[in-house]
Amino acid sequence: MRIAIQGELGAFSHQAALHFLPGAQVVACATSVQVFDALDSRHVQAAAIPVENTLAGPVGEHLDLLMEREVFVHAEMRLRIQHNLIAAPGTKLRDVRQVLSHPVALDQCRNFFRRHRRIVPVPFYDTAGSVKHVVAGKLHDTAAIASRQAGQEYGGKVLLPALEDDKQNFTRFFLIKKSKKSGLQADKTSLAFGLKNVSGALFKALSVFALRDLDLSKIESRPVRGKPWEYCFFVDVLSGDDQAMCLALNQLEEIAGFVKVLGIYPRAK
Amino acid sequence: MRIAIQGELGAFSHQAALHFLPGAQVVACATSVQVFDALDSRHVQAAAIPVENTLAGPVGEHLDLLMEREVFVHAEMRLRIQHNLIAAPGTKLRDVRQVLSHPVALDQCRNFFRRHRRIVPVPFYDTAGSVKHVVAGKLHDTAAIASRQAGQEYGGKVLLPALEDDKQNFTRFFLIKKSKKSGLQADKTSLAFGLKNVSGALFKALSVFALRDLDLSKIESRPVRGKPWEYCFFVDVLSGDDQAMCLALNQLEEIAGFVKVLGIYPRAK
Repeated sequence: MRIAIQGELGAFSHQAALHFLPGAQVVACATSVQVFDALDSRHVQAAAIPVENTLAGPVGEHLDLLMEREVFVHAEMRLRIQHNLIAAPGTKLRDVRQVLSHPVALDQCRNFFRRHRRIVPVPFYDTAGSVKHVVAGKLHDTAAIASRQAGQEYGGKVLLPALEDDKQNFTRFFLIKKSKKSGLQADKTSLAFGLKNVSGALFKALSVFALRDLDLSKIESRPVRGKPWEYCFFVDVLSGDDQAMCLALNQLEEIAGFVKVLGIYPRAK
Repeated sequence: MRIAIQGELGAFSHQAALHFLPGAQVVACATSVQVFDALDSRHVQAAAIPVENTLAGPVGEHLDLLMEREVFVHAEMRLRIQHNLIAAPGTKLRDVRQVLSHPVALDQCRNFFRRHRRIVPVPFYDTAGSVKHVVAGKLHDTAAIASRQAGQEYGGKVLLPALEDDKQNFTRFFLIKKSKKSGLQADKTSLAFGLKNVSGALFKALSVFALRDLDLSKIESRPVRGKPWEYCFFVDVLSGDDQAMCLALNQLEEIAGFVKVLGIYPRAK
C-alpha cells in the first residue's frame, strides 16, 4: 500500500500517514496538486493531507482540492505539533546564525527568535526539507525547525526540543482515497456547498441542520475562484449516513447552488 | 499624517495606503505586529492592512490582531492585484534562472513557471522586498515578482507584465485607526464574536441578523488560540449604526461569549 504526502519524508504529514496506515510506503510529493494527481493516476492508494491547524487556521489549498477532485475522506486524526531546532552533527547552538523552516513553523516559534536576537529566521519551502538541506550541505552556521522524525530521517541532531510558543498546537489530517465507501462507525460528515447570493442564504442553509438537531463542529468559508466576493462553505456535521442527515442534505440541495459530500468517517476522539 | 503598512515600500499595501490617504507618509513595518504597535504608540495615525484575497482567502493574522487590539476600521477598498516580472536594469528574460517573491505571489503565477521550466520559483519574505534585493544586489540571473510600483520604487525594470494566472485577483484592505468615530455614510459593520460550544450556536447567532433582514456579505471562522477546536467568527453586515443593527447586536450578546464591533464604514462600490 502506498500513501502520498505533500512535503519531504519526515514531515508532519509523514507521521500522520503512518498513523493512518502503519507499515505503508510513504510517497513524498513536492506539491499538493501532485498528491491529488498521484491518487488519480492510481500511483498511490491513499494520501494524508493537513486541513487545519489550531493556531494557523485552515489549509485553504487542500479544502479547494477536496472540492475540485473526485476523492473521499475516510478518516481524520489530530497530531500534536512539536517543533525542534535541528542541525548538522557537530554544530553547536552558539554557532547558529540563521534558522530555516516553513514560514508557518517559523511563525509558531516567535519566542525562540525573541530570546536569540542574533539568529535570523529564513523562510524555506518545507520543515523536513530544511533539515535535509542543512545536513546535506553540512552547514554549520544554519539550523532547521522541524519534527524529531525529520532529524532521524536525514541524520540531523536536535539542539533544542519544544521550540513552539504554544503547546496547544495541533494539526488535523484527513486520510483520503478514491473509493467512496464509508466504513463502520462513520459518525461525522464533511461537506461543501455553494450559496446563491441572496438574503439570509447561509442562515437558511444552516437551518437544515439546526432544525434536525444535527451539530456542526466546524464551518469554513473559501473564496470562489473567478467570482470575486463569492464564497463556498465547508462544514463538518457530527452525524453519519443516517435518515436525519439524508433529509438535511436533500433540503440543503433546495437552497444551495451545489452540495458535495466530501466524506463520512469516524470522528477522532 | 503617517500611515503604516506591513512590508517594504512599493508593496500592494503601499498602493492601498495612498488610495486611503493621498499624500500621506507611508511607514514600512517588517511585521504585522509592528504595524499595530506603531498605531498603539501613536508613531502613526493610521494603517492599511490586507484582510482577504479573492484567490488565497483571508489574512488570518490580521483578523486575529483586529480582534486582540484596540483599533477601529474606518474604510475598506478593493485593489486589483497585477503581478510583474521585474529585474535589475540590463537583465534579459533569457538570463533569468530563478524568481523571488512572496509564496502567495509565486502561487498566483503558476502558469508562468509551467511555461518557463528552467526558471525556479524561490519563496522570499515580501513581493516589493524581492525587487529591492534583486536590484540592490545587481543580480543578473534572478528576477522578482511584484507590483509595477515596486519596480519604480527600487529602479527595477519590468521584463513581463500581467504574470498572474487569474485576472479576477483582488485584495480587500482596511484603513484602521485608534479612534472609534464612524463617518457619514457608514453602511457596513464588521464584527467578531465567540460562541459557547452548544448545539446550534452559530445558527442562533446568525438568526439575529436574518430575522431582521440584515444581510451578511462575509463570514469567516478563526481558531481560538489556547482552545483547540474552538472557533470565533468574523462577519460583515450590510448595515451601519441603525436601530435594527443595535437590536441585533443586543440579541447577539445574549448568545455569544463575546461580541466586538471592529468597525462601521462605507462599503466599497
